Amino acid sequence: MQPDLSRLDELLADRGVDGYLIDADATVSDQRYLSGFDAPDPFVTLYDGELHLLVSSLEYGRARTESRADDVARRADFDYRAKREEYGPDEADHRVLAEFLADRGVDSVLTPSRFPLAPADGLQELGVGVSAETDDVVTEIRATKTGEEIEHVRTAQRANERAMARAEELLREASVEAGENGDVLVDGGETLTSERVRREIEMELLRHDHALDETIVACGADAADPHDRGSGPLRPDEPIIVDIFPRGKESKYHADMTRTFVRGDPSDAIAEWYDLTVEAMEAALDAVEPGATGEEVHAAACDVYEAAGEPTLRSDEATETGFIHSTGHGVGLDVHEQPSIAPGGERLRPGHVITIEPGVYDPDHGGVRVEDLVVVTEEGHENLTGYPKELVVGGR
Amino acid sequence: MQPDLSRLDELLADRGVDGYLIDADATVSDQRYLSGFDAPDPFVTLYDGELHLLVSSLEYGRARTESRADDVARRADFDYRAKREEYGPDEADHRVLAEFLADRGVDSVLTPSRFPLAPADGLQELGVGVSAETDDVVTEIRATKTGEEIEHVRTAQRANERAMARAEELLREASVEAGENGDVLVDGGETLTSERVRREIEMELLRHDHALDETIVACGADAADPHDRGSGPLRPDEPIIVDIFPRGKESKYHADMTRTFVRGDPSDAIAEWYDLTVEAMEAALDAVEPGATGEEVHAAACDVYEAAGEPTLRSDEATETGFIHSTGHGVGLDVHEQPSIAPGGERLRPGHVITIEPGVYDPDHGGVRVEDLVVVTEEGHENLTGYPKELVVGGR
Repeated sequence: MQPDLSRLDELLADRGVDGYLIDADATVSDQRYLSGFDAPDPFVTLYDGELHLLVSSLEYGRARTESRADDVARRADFDYRAKREEYGPDEADHRVLAEFLADRGVDSVLTPSRFPLAPADGLQELGVGVSAETDDVVTEIRATKTGEEIEHVRTAQRANERAMARAEELLREASVEAGENGDVLVDGGETLTSERVRREIEMELLRHDHALDETIVACGADAADPHDRGSGPLRPDEPIIVDIFPRGKESKYHADMTRTFVRGDPSDAIAEWYDLTVEAMEAALDAVEPGATGEEVHAAACDVYEAAGEPTLRSDEATETGFIHSTGHGVGLDVHEQPSIAPGGERLRPGHVITIEPGVYDPDHGGVRVEDLVVVTEEGHENLTGYPKELVVGGR
Repeated sequence: MQPDLSRLDELLADRGVDGYLIDADATVSDQRYLSGFDAPDPFVTLYDGELHLLVSSLEYGRARTESRADDVARRADFDYRAKREEYGPDEADHRVLAEFLADRGVDSVLTPSRFPLAPADGLQELGVGVSAETDDVVTEIRATKTGEEIEHVRTAQRANERAMARAEELLREASVEAGENGDVLVDGGETLTSERVRREIEMELLRHDHALDETIVACGADAADPHDRGSGPLRPDEPIIVDIFPRGKESKYHADMTRTFVRGDPSDAIAEWYDLTVEAMEAALDAVEPGATGEEVHAAACDVYEAAGEPTLRSDEATETGFIHSTGHGVGLDVHEQPSIAPGGERLRPGHVITIEPGVYDPDHGGVRVEDLVVVTEEGHENLTGYPKELVVGGR
């Protein structure tokens, strides 16, 4: 895949700087996207119309064959060892980087907002102009996906659906037995825990070439905190939030989906919140189209909750119950990326892949969240999610 | 676990600055270590003798209960919304951060070397002194492990050994059959590939509550590149490098181990390199003791290779064959951390956990690498690795 970097070209021309510089490992998605290279330790990518990489000797062979760089240099090309002896390892790194830039006629660079401070200082001391660009143009460019990237996300959501089905099956087929602190779900003679369901989800993802280290399987009070991963026994009659956001082991693209299940009889509050949340999701989805902003989509979800008397962060910035997060976020190389479906959220374009995931939380009742993944199209959106929305998965 | 931050206290006093500031998500191990908090999006940790966190509303509840902070603030406490409307999201972030620091009487901060540039610039514009500290004191502090941390690493290495045994079993029990481009290993009627062995390794790790997304299973020419993960059919008579570096799903601590296997008959070159590599490992291990430097341990391995006529990066900085990487690295929250067992490598202290992993590579023959994980003790070292070193795993 060749990214369309015309907005980056325009930005460099507008600012009158020579190049765009990234110093990061490939877990930083702007680095992976721009360089087309995957390495575990930090390396340098320079874009000045052409793409140049500066890597360690260890990565040199692979960078030449696997990255999309026009040329690849290594630190040894700049007498790194002699510099390290003269200046120490940190200043040697900065001097090598300055020479790499000078060799390519680059006197000034724009960087991502989170470019590392010490190399920036080092380059400036050596006379290179360095300015951080707060809008993160590569992050913005990669928010708009090509057809190939959308296929990667679609494939990841298919794996996600198989994993969700495995989780639902475990909850549905468990027996309900008396535990030390009330009834619990039991499977194969053992108490069914968040940890056990999480492991089964991750095994199912691996079988389909996807990986995930942080699945949420949160029951009862755990479910009242949107980022609590959950732990311990799963109980009947309580909401169990299952939020799965796998990444393709080869493609590196994510999917994202959440369902809330109750095995047994949900409380009236939970049943009501579930219906309200599905209604908020539908209202938000109706608002998804090119030209709408993330803020407008978020507002559509807030309207539904507030009309029903539930607090939102829009109605009360400091509330700790109700709808206490944004409506969604972009998904791609990062599981959280642009655009933001929240106050201040960007204008939607065709090719944006976003979640819609309203939810309600209260420590007294637990939480409810439902999340689909959609792609913005010329006409509106296509829902990439094929999983049913059903709260109750079997009686007691 | 309460980290011993006395070196950080001394550094702040020496430099005459008020606090140490990290702005990063919990995948940055200094952040995880100092804050004791795990969150997927960036948050702020300030250490000024006490520990202060600044998080989003979404993380507020969890940060108060799970982190080791003395106090937790959230952006809403500083009128974030009004600031965002007046200044835009980026400057609003910087202003909130500056007020958070001012409230705690902090006018100047020291940061890690890779502190993000835009917040550093933003704070400086608001009158806060910001200087990047190139030695990364928290990275240095966490290189020395407590008994509890060493137990986490030991547990991870046990899971690693089970996964390695599963890989070896697959290679040993495969049949050898004619493929399109020469003989290949076959298991259950299907060609045994790098991808298949990798999946089985990762499933075995998951069964033991460890995770890994980047296992190396590299055969033949792939094995000649130390960072090539490997792909496609596995072949008899060729070296297969298996390098596994899992992380505890709860503990977040890593282990690391490599073995090289040949199913069938290794070439004379590979057999010779294997013996030489085990010899280099033993020489390096003999050099591991408190007070020795990483550079000295690396030199012991280089001596063995160079005496046998193999090039090393010490004898030829630009060589692409021979021993073309360092002898090892620290292992902990990061799979690559301090100390470095390489030129310039730090002085070893009791509690350092390090790999010893010499290897030889040549595109004409493939590669050989063997890696154990050891902890530096008062007396010398303890090898945390209980896996045998045997090149040949069954005849043709």
